[in-house]
Amino acid sequence: METSRREIAAMIMLGGTGAALSSAKAATPATEAKLVHHVFFWLKNPGSKVDRDQLIAGLATLKDIPVIRSLQIGVPASTEKRDVIDASYDVTELMYFDNLADQKAYQDHPIHLAFVKSCEHLWQKVLVYDMEIVAGD
Amino acid sequence: METSRREIAAMIMLGGTGAALSSAKAATPATEAKLVHHVFFWLKNPGSKVDRDQLIAGLATLKDIPVIRSLQIGVPASTEKRDVIDASYDVTELMYFDNLADQKAYQDHPIHLAFVKSCEHLWQKVLVYDMEIVAGD
Repeated sequence: METSRREIAAMIMLGGTGAALSSAKAATPATEAKLVHHVFFWLKNPGSKVDRDQLIAGLATLKDIPVIRSLQIGVPASTEKRDVIDASYDVTELMYFDNLADQKAYQDHPIHLAFVKSCEHLWQKVLVYDMEIVAGD
Repeated sequence: METSRREIAAMIMLGGTGAALSSAKAATPATEAKLVHHVFFWLKNPGSKVDRDQLIAGLATLKDIPVIRSLQIGVPASTEKRDVIDASYDVTELMYFDNLADQKAYQDHPIHLAFVKSCEHLWQKVLVYDMEIVAGD
């Protein structure tokens, strides 16, 4: 069987385009994920870099929970000081889920429960915002 | 020139892989963006669907500001009620920026200023969290 270079090129482009579309879809949390779970932690010892880093390391273990579409861990950014900005927290985690059921599965997942058990002595306050995405890119 | 089916398949897979890698990089805001700007709004008329939709439409205009790497607009999700969850807000926006300078450029951008001017009569309270990403996918 003979196949021309042009036919091969067309097949490669087709293969490439298909892969690009599907991977772009998978890589953008906002495209399919419909739920954002944003948690803020205030440490018992806010001045302790050791406690902060231990909490950050604990949060990093959560990435192995399969239902999490995207996970970011952060600290207050050095943006301009304004009355409307709350920069009093110490550590924050931001996660994307596809739906409510996946978020519930995350809450009950053994890795999440192990994280709470090993790190809850570090924080004095937790505040959670759950957001259903209604528009975006 | 003759090319075997196996060779063609290999070329397609190669083309596919290359496209997938480059598009994954471009499509994930968290990979390159280092700053999350999360804003919560409490409406003056929390029961008004008209006011809520007007605010959501106003927020949607922000997507044309070039420094925004990713923008999601949302409302409180119907997750389990828990003491640590604040679901009292009406509308929220979540944005990714590459750095502090881009976030400042957004604050000063004419489209942002026009949004504030046209929508600020709708809200009674705004609360902002700015997060510097220190770990994540």
